[in-house]
Amino acid sequence: MQIRPAHANDQPALWAILGPVIRAGDTYALDRDMEQDEALAYWLGPDKETFVAQDDTGALLGTYYLRPNQAGGGRHVCNCGYMTHADARGRGIGRQMALHSLAHAHMRGYRAMQFNFVISTNENAIRLWQQFGFHTVGRLPDAFDHPLHGPVDALVMYRALNGTLPIH
Amino acid sequence: MQIRPAHANDQPALWAILGPVIRAGDTYALDRDMEQDEALAYWLGPDKETFVAQDDTGALLGTYYLRPNQAGGGRHVCNCGYMTHADARGRGIGRQMALHSLAHAHMRGYRAMQFNFVISTNENAIRLWQQFGFHTVGRLPDAFDHPLHGPVDALVMYRALNGTLPIH
Repeated sequence: MQIRPAHANDQPALWAILGPVIRAGDTYALDRDMEQDEALAYWLGPDKETFVAQDDTGALLGTYYLRPNQAGGGRHVCNCGYMTHADARGRGIGRQMALHSLAHAHMRGYRAMQFNFVISTNENAIRLWQQFGFHTVGRLPDAFDHPLHGPVDALVMYRALNGTLPIH
Repeated sequence: MQIRPAHANDQPALWAILGPVIRAGDTYALDRDMEQDEALAYWLGPDKETFVAQDDTGALLGTYYLRPNQAGGGRHVCNCGYMTHADARGRGIGRQMALHSLAHAHMRGYRAMQFNFVISTNENAIRLWQQFGFHTVGRLPDAFDHPLHGPVDALVMYRALNGTLPIH
């Protein structure tokens, strides 16, 4: 597996990853009926560095973006979003992308990484972030209307990027 | 004092409020060298409802915006930003705008209001939000580079909008 910057001609393959995640609406606070063009403009926005994970045949397995979480005095903290292709789950793609993103953010000089809105029912993601040294620094009560479970909490997770990064 | 929706021809007077706050860089995570056009496009963005507070002569005393804090399953929680004109501080303008925004958000059907990034040194703001029933639900360590104090925490503050609103 290789992780590389996304290119404009990745867009159809990116939509094959983003579309089902957005339509499911249970892990990201994005409108479930978001159009393809709007979703790609968001994921590939000028505020973001977007990467893709591909296998040896060039097929995309996952994607993530990295951006400053705030401007001005908050610009030293980054934010990322990650999606794995529905057919590639359970193979550690998310873990590889997480490791890549932490190393890339560290190289870029970011001093911390923050996730603003981790859905509390997304246990796989929470476990992964905890393994990578993230702490839950905030809990937003009933902040997410889950399509199956109704109102559930969202978590704010945070880790500093100073010192050495964990190797998993 | 009257609070009303902002109009396009408020832009010069709005910039007289926004400019000094942005240039000071100690209360908002916005780039301090942000251009006027960019700042106005942000404050009057299509995702926002923007209001102004004016005195009997029509001079602007303050401004706030209200928007959904997230899309999709997070769209029932709103977010606001408030700025008071440098010459109008200490006269309760912020308090009046806060009350207006809570009532307006309630009328719009939002179920909660969230502030994502309250600078921990902004004691006047924190005291005001606590008086209006907001709780600190998150603390982001060293997430803001304060121009005078260096790295300081930022707070996530939250309150539900169900039931009756406080009258102050």
